[in-house]
Amino acid sequence: MSCRSLLATAVALACLALPTIAAAADAPLSAQAIATADKLRDAGIAGNATDGSRAYDIVESLTTEIGERLAGTPPANRAVDWAKAKFRKFGYDKVYVEPVTFPLWTRGVEEASVVSPYPQHLEITALGHSVGTHGAIEADVVEFATLDALKTAAPGSLAGKIAYISNRMQRFKDGRGYPAAVVARVDGPSIAGKLGAKALLIRSIGTDRDRMPHTGVLDYKSDAPKIPAAALSNSDADLLSNMLRRGKPVRVRLSLGAEEHGMATSYNVIGEITGRRKPDEVVTIGGHLDSWDLGTGAIDDGAGVAITMAAGALIAQEHPHPARTVRVIAYMDEESGSFGGRAYANAHLAQLKQHQLGAESDFGAGRIYALRAGVKDAAWPVIEQIGKVLAPLGIVTERNAADADAGPDTGEFAAKGMAWAQLAQDGTDYFDWHHTANDTLDKIDPKALDQQAAAYAVLAYLAAEAEGGMGSGEMPLPKAEK
Amino acid sequence: MSCRSLLATAVALACLALPTIAAAADAPLSAQAIATADKLRDAGIAGNATDGSRAYDIVESLTTEIGERLAGTPPANRAVDWAKAKFRKFGYDKVYVEPVTFPLWTRGVEEASVVSPYPQHLEITALGHSVGTHGAIEADVVEFATLDALKTAAPGSLAGKIAYISNRMQRFKDGRGYPAAVVARVDGPSIAGKLGAKALLIRSIGTDRDRMPHTGVLDYKSDAPKIPAAALSNSDADLLSNMLRRGKPVRVRLSLGAEEHGMATSYNVIGEITGRRKPDEVVTIGGHLDSWDLGTGAIDDGAGVAITMAAGALIAQEHPHPARTVRVIAYMDEESGSFGGRAYANAHLAQLKQHQLGAESDFGAGRIYALRAGVKDAAWPVIEQIGKVLAPLGIVTERNAADADAGPDTGEFAAKGMAWAQLAQDGTDYFDWHHTANDTLDKIDPKALDQQAAAYAVLAYLAAEAEGGMGSGEMPLPKAEK
Repeated sequence: MSCRSLLATAVALACLALPTIAAAADAPLSAQAIATADKLRDAGIAGNATDGSRAYDIVESLTTEIGERLAGTPPANRAVDWAKAKFRKFGYDKVYVEPVTFPLWTRGVEEASVVSPYPQHLEITALGHSVGTHGAIEADVVEFATLDALKTAAPGSLAGKIAYISNRMQRFKDGRGYPAAVVARVDGPSIAGKLGAKALLIRSIGTDRDRMPHTGVLDYKSDAPKIPAAALSNSDADLLSNMLRRGKPVRVRLSLGAEEHGMATSYNVIGEITGRRKPDEVVTIGGHLDSWDLGTGAIDDGAGVAITMAAGALIAQEHPHPARTVRVIAYMDEESGSFGGRAYANAHLAQLKQHQLGAESDFGAGRIYALRAGVKDAAWPVIEQIGKVLAPLGIVTERNAADADAGPDTGEFAAKGMAWAQLAQDGTDYFDWHHTANDTLDKIDPKALDQQAAAYAVLAYLAAEAEGGMGSGEMPLPKAEK
Repeated sequence: MSCRSLLATAVALACLALPTIAAAADAPLSAQAIATADKLRDAGIAGNATDGSRAYDIVESLTTEIGERLAGTPPANRAVDWAKAKFRKFGYDKVYVEPVTFPLWTRGVEEASVVSPYPQHLEITALGHSVGTHGAIEADVVEFATLDALKTAAPGSLAGKIAYISNRMQRFKDGRGYPAAVVARVDGPSIAGKLGAKALLIRSIGTDRDRMPHTGVLDYKSDAPKIPAAALSNSDADLLSNMLRRGKPVRVRLSLGAEEHGMATSYNVIGEITGRRKPDEVVTIGGHLDSWDLGTGAIDDGAGVAITMAAGALIAQEHPHPARTVRVIAYMDEESGSFGGRAYANAHLAQLKQHQLGAESDFGAGRIYALRAGVKDAAWPVIEQIGKVLAPLGIVTERNAADADAGPDTGEFAAKGMAWAQLAQDGTDYFDWHHTANDTLDKIDPKALDQQAAAYAVLAYLAAEAEGGMGSGEMPLPKAEK
C-alpha cells in the first residue's frame, strides 16, 4: 500500500458516521449460500490445492518468476502476462485487461556518504518519483525532529543545505503509525524545497532496525521547487543523528540517478467468475500487481494478488457459481498513487450501482483479525451473517472501527460511492519490510495466506449471493481529502 | 569473530580433557581482592561513567566517528589513533602499538543477476579475499545441498559452471551452527575450483531472513585454482533454489571487483594498567579493532573492544592497582584470519609464562551466561572464586563445556600454551547480523554491555591478584588443527 490509504481512511470514517438504523429484515442470505460459504472457508483453510492455486504457491510463482515489478518496466509487463495465464489456469471464465496510464520513473544509481567530519558510507534510497541530483551534490545537513519542526524553519534558512527529518515511525498492529509518519515522505520534499533546501533526507518510514532504506512515493506540490529526496535506513538515521549531536557541521554528498520518463500505459488484469443470475452485478476483490523495485514485492503486494486470486479460484471450482459476478482485479501502479484503482473507478463509474461491494488485500501477509464495512445500514445484517461464517477463522466483525479502511485502490471507487468491506490484517511486522529490499517471500507464512484466501472467498461469495444491494450509489459521498 | 575460532575450540577441548585433580589449597584470592572485585562489578553494572568510558559510549564513538574499518584501509588506520586516544583518556598508564602485517584486500563493485529464465537482480557480496571476476562472467548454476555433496561431484563435471552450496546455518545460543556451516565458505572455493567451476556461490552463513548477504574470509588452498566466490543473502538463496527447482537451466551473471593489494602493516593497540607488585606479569583481555566493510562493526567487534576497554577503565580508576599488569589489546585484522592475535603471540612468545591469563570478547553484544577456562587444575579454585563474584551477574561457572573457546585472537596464544578464560555470551541473534551491513549500533543494548564490562573487570582484576600462576607454559599443548 502507499500513502493513498490516507484518503481511504477518510472515506471509511465518513461512511461509518452514518446514523445506525437497525435493519430487521429476514436474514438476507440463504441457508444454502451459508453452507457453500462454510465449505469454501474450510477448503481455503485446508490449503491443499495442487494446481498452483494455493495463495502461497501463487506468490511464490510471482516472486520467483517475475520478482520486482515497478509499473511500466519490463518485469511489470511480464507480470501482466503472468496474471492472465494464472487466471486462465485457475478456471476464471473471463480474463481481460483494462489500460492504466501513469508516470514512468526509474531509480538509477543512488549513493550517499558523510564527507566530514566522520567520513562514512550511508545507506539511502530515493523516494519514489524524486528528481535526480544530476551528478553529486554536497551540503551541510540540518536536522528537524519532525515535519512540523521543518515547517517552522525561517524562509531561506535552508538555502544551500540538506534538510533532514529524523522522527521514527511507531509500531502498531493496525499500522496507524504509518499515516502519522508518512507525511514527512509525502509532503517533506516540497516544504523543504520552498525553504530553499538543496535536498531532503528523511528517516525511513519503517518500524525495523535494519540497515535497509524504505522507498515510497513523494508528492511534489506545483508551487514548490522539486528537490531530490531520499530515505536513510533507520540504522543510518541513527548514525547521522549521532554525528549531528556532536555539534560539528556534518557534510553529506548525495547522488541520485532517478529519472522521470513521461507517461506509460500498462494494465489492470481482471479475472471473473460470471454470476449465474445477475452477471452484470459484480463483487470486486483484488490487490496490486506492481511493486517497488527494491524487493521482490512479496508482501506488497504479491500477497494481496495471491490471496484474492486464490479466493476466486476456490469460488470458480465451486458449482453452481454465485448469483453475481466475482471479479478479481490485479491493479497496476498502486505504488505511484493508486493509478490502477483510479483507472478502474473512472472506467466503471457508469456501473457504480452494479458494484455490489469492493474489497482489497494490500497490507502484507499477516492474518486477518477483523471484518469491517462501509455499506448502507440496511445491508449491515449481510455483513453480520458473513461475519458469522468468518468467526471460526479468528475474525471478529467490527462496526465502528476508527481505522477502518477501504484500501488504496478500492478506496478510489469507494470515494465515488461504492460499498466496500475490509478484512483487516495484523500489520505488526508489515512496516519492518514495506518498500525495502527485504520485501521477499521468506516473510510469508503459507498458513496465514490460507486463512486470508478462505476469508476473501467467503466474503466475495456471500456478497455475491446476498439479497439486495449493499449501498453503492445510495450512500452520501465522503468528504474530500483534506 | 571469523572461522579461526574453530582452532580455539580445539584448544579448549584439549585443555579441558586434563584429568580433574582437586586442589584443596587455601583460597588463593584475598578477602580484600574479592571486596574490590565486588566493587568493580557493581560499578560496571551501574554503567554511570560520565567520561565516555561506559562500554556503550565507547562503541557508539567507534561506530559513529570511524564506522566500517577493514584492516589496512584509511578508516582502520583512523581507528588505531582513536583507540590510542581512548586508552589515554581513560587513565591507562601505558599506551603503545605493535605491528601487524596482513594481506590487504578490497571489495570493489559487486553485482549479480539471473539472466534466464527468470531475469532478476540478486543480492550478493564477495567472500573476503575472493579474487575478482575481471569483467562479468556468466554461467549456468549447479546446486549442491551441502559442501559434502559438492565434494562428491565428478571431476570436471563443473567445468564452465557456477557451483552453488545452499544449506542453511542453524541457530543456537552458543553459535555452534557456525562451524558446521562455515566450511562451505572457507573450503568451498578451492573444492569447487578443483572441480573446474568458474565461480562459487554460497548461501550466506547466517541465521537471518534478511535480504542482506554475509561476507567472511575464504581460504584458497595452494593446489587449487582461485575462483571468484560470493555469498547470496538468505532471501536470494531461497530465490535461486526456487528457480532451480523448476528444472530449467538457470544462468547467472556475476561481477566482482575484489582485489588483493599485497601486504600491509597496521597495529594492535595496547593499553595497560601497570601491576603494583608484578608489573612484568600480565593478564590480557581484548577484542578486535578491525571490521568487515559492510556494516559499522558494532557487534563484530566494536562491542568487544568497548567491553574490554571499559573493563580496563574501571580497573584503572580503582586504587591500588592490581598486583599484575592488566593489558587490554585492540587486535588488528582478526577478520582475514587472526593476524593480530598471531602477531601478538609471536611477539610475546618469550613471555609466555609471564602471561597469567588471556581472554577475549568477540561474539557480539549479548549477555554473558558462563565462565569457562583453560587453566591448570591447581588454578581451578581461582576460577571458582572468580565465578562466585560473577554469579550475581547471572553467570555460571562451567568446568567442562563442550563448546568452550579461547576466542580467535587469544586462541593463537592459547595454542602456544597460554592459560585462558572465556566469558561465554548469548549468541542467539549474533549470526543474524554477523558480517553484514546490518552490523550497526542499534543491535546493541547498553545494559547488556554494562554486564559484560563488569564481568571482564572482575575477571581481569582477580586473575591479576591471584596467588600463583594459572598454567601458561605448564599445560600440555593442544592438538594441532585438523
